[in-house]
Amino acid sequence: MSVTAAKGFTAAGIAAGIKANGRPDLALVVNTGPSRAAAGVFTSNRVKAAPVLWSEQVVKGGAVTAVVLNSGGANACTGPQGFQDTHATAEKAAEVLGHSAGEVAVASTGLIGVLLPMDKLLPGVEAAAAELSAHGGEKAAVAIKTTDTVHKTAVATGPGGAWAVGGMAKGAGMLAPGLATMLVVLTTDADVDAGTLDKALRDATRQTFDRVDSDGCMSTNDTVLLLASGASGTVPEYGDFADAVRTVCQDLARQLIGDAEGASKDIKVEVVNAATEEDAVEVGRSIARNNLLKCAIHGEDPNWGRVLSAIGTTAAAFEPDRLNVAINGVWVCRDGSVGDDRDLVDMRFREVTVTADLAAGDRSAVIWTNDLTADYVHENSAYSS
Amino acid sequence: MSVTAAKGFTAAGIAAGIKANGRPDLALVVNTGPSRAAAGVFTSNRVKAAPVLWSEQVVKGGAVTAVVLNSGGANACTGPQGFQDTHATAEKAAEVLGHSAGEVAVASTGLIGVLLPMDKLLPGVEAAAAELSAHGGEKAAVAIKTTDTVHKTAVATGPGGAWAVGGMAKGAGMLAPGLATMLVVLTTDADVDAGTLDKALRDATRQTFDRVDSDGCMSTNDTVLLLASGASGTVPEYGDFADAVRTVCQDLARQLIGDAEGASKDIKVEVVNAATEEDAVEVGRSIARNNLLKCAIHGEDPNWGRVLSAIGTTAAAFEPDRLNVAINGVWVCRDGSVGDDRDLVDMRFREVTVTADLAAGDRSAVIWTNDLTADYVHENSAYSS
Repeated sequence: MSVTAAKGFTAAGIAAGIKANGRPDLALVVNTGPSRAAAGVFTSNRVKAAPVLWSEQVVKGGAVTAVVLNSGGANACTGPQGFQDTHATAEKAAEVLGHSAGEVAVASTGLIGVLLPMDKLLPGVEAAAAELSAHGGEKAAVAIKTTDTVHKTAVATGPGGAWAVGGMAKGAGMLAPGLATMLVVLTTDADVDAGTLDKALRDATRQTFDRVDSDGCMSTNDTVLLLASGASGTVPEYGDFADAVRTVCQDLARQLIGDAEGASKDIKVEVVNAATEEDAVEVGRSIARNNLLKCAIHGEDPNWGRVLSAIGTTAAAFEPDRLNVAINGVWVCRDGSVGDDRDLVDMRFREVTVTADLAAGDRSAVIWTNDLTADYVHENSAYSS
Repeated sequence: MSVTAAKGFTAAGIAAGIKANGRPDLALVVNTGPSRAAAGVFTSNRVKAAPVLWSEQVVKGGAVTAVVLNSGGANACTGPQGFQDTHATAEKAAEVLGHSAGEVAVASTGLIGVLLPMDKLLPGVEAAAAELSAHGGEKAAVAIKTTDTVHKTAVATGPGGAWAVGGMAKGAGMLAPGLATMLVVLTTDADVDAGTLDKALRDATRQTFDRVDSDGCMSTNDTVLLLASGASGTVPEYGDFADAVRTVCQDLARQLIGDAEGASKDIKVEVVNAATEEDAVEVGRSIARNNLLKCAIHGEDPNWGRVLSAIGTTAAAFEPDRLNVAINGVWVCRDGSVGDDRDLVDMRFREVTVTADLAAGDRSAVIWTNDLTADYVHENSAYSS
């Protein structure tokens, strides 16, 4: 279903020859209207890839007619030539589709520091346009894969099925190797203006994609776009719409974690009883980024001392001797000291839940991460060579 | 030479039975005077082990007669009982040595969340006292090892050999598995008051131990002590003394990196042309903590894009299109884009230098780290189980 689950969109995915192995590497998503409202969120890394710099400007206009996405190269740290290449890509799509380049967003993913093969990419845009279809969502999702083992799509619908939000994603956010990137395109046939799309998208990403932290490494290319065609003719209630967008984002975010490179465990870090949501997020992220804990979980070792040492590096409100930690529901640490028998913890399944109780308030947050494995090291030490 | 290189100190290292494998696990260092001036720096982790809480108070008094150190257990996250155990350890040493417990520092290293076997430790303090010798420094250094493959000592002397600064260290700072800790004891026979020791020690650790960042994980037990006996009868020039302390700290810090678990590369991250030293340290630490870069270096892959993406997550002053990066002296990134041929980079040797030029000022800093390897994952996923 993907980006063509909602009415008013066509998509295509083809092999343009950007990837040396001949796999699909170019996707095109087109909004056929009647509305072209759009919003986007981008990496907060100060080193931004050329397509991010370009698409940020496009989205500021509040309208997006088409998105060109390529795998096989991130077009990051490529200087003025890289930016010209992104511009030329948008111009080519505009020319083929008969629209303005100022409404064409571009997203790229792959190795940093390598120029894209424009002699392959530009003809690819023409070829993809010829394949555009209201059933092309799956092929588009496949074409943006890099080291993803599966393509990722999700759909949610409004009350009575009056409208839909669909989406596709690639990458495992900051985990992707050398690689840059989580790319996400969401579409809806609800009739929603750009300002409302922006609000719904930011609310959703703050609680979903922003709380996926596979390896603490922030990409230069992260891009999440939300396009509205208005083709359903329905203006949704804001709450319903925001729920649908968040549901699709959460679904895709969970799929990213589930496909993270080299991972053998998906780790849900729940922080509860924090003084503020910010505290809960800070503590959750600190736990999620602790390499020693991630190794321990890989070894199915409920090493709660590593959780406490991670909490201790934060500025969150808590007293060390009131901290409690559960692993898969067993409170192995109580009041900052030894709790229930660690042998009671069953860590055989892929999903592991670490619960940190700060005993400092009533706020909470969840951060998702993965374990740290020898496979991660292997994939990421051999990628570009 | 170690902690007995300076006159006025005795030391011992024995096997007290704390470690199940029967290896040495208890060290005692005694200042025989005439001075007992001392200073210390401790982990900034808010979750502090019992011996850290105890020794911070001891050091505040400005005098330390003896230090009891054990491996085989960190006595961290052990609640009120853990603190009582540290207190009892100091009392036992005071009783055996005929001094006040208020001048006995305690340091522990090993697994977090496990009570120490006091029935082994307290008799061990007596046994160690019986072995005290002016030549006991090496044995003390051996007894504090955990997963260290070698014991670590260093010595520097003042002008004309009038006085000396010696030291021992264990651990690889924040890298040690599950494990807690870098423990360091420095001694000197120079006649220096506690306030001056504190200043020299803080100046030295800020530029040495604080800039070793193996895996970004901060211990609950880090302890660095500096004890002065005054036995040389010489009051040194401050500059000479501070230099000697820094030299010994730098030597020991480099040894810690060289023995980091699972590491195959020692990585020197140099940040140059920063606007401020703080900027240089922030950028250096961000690069040093980037798992993707650490994997790439393990694979001898000069993946400079990962350096740029790490710099981009900081708040330091820089313009993305003016950044330059060299790996082992080859400027593979110039002006934020592709620079010299990456195939020119030779990464076969253990030491690898990453140079980040921020082009924003004239300040610099060096952070040392290690690569991320499958061996690191193996050691840290199997340690406590």
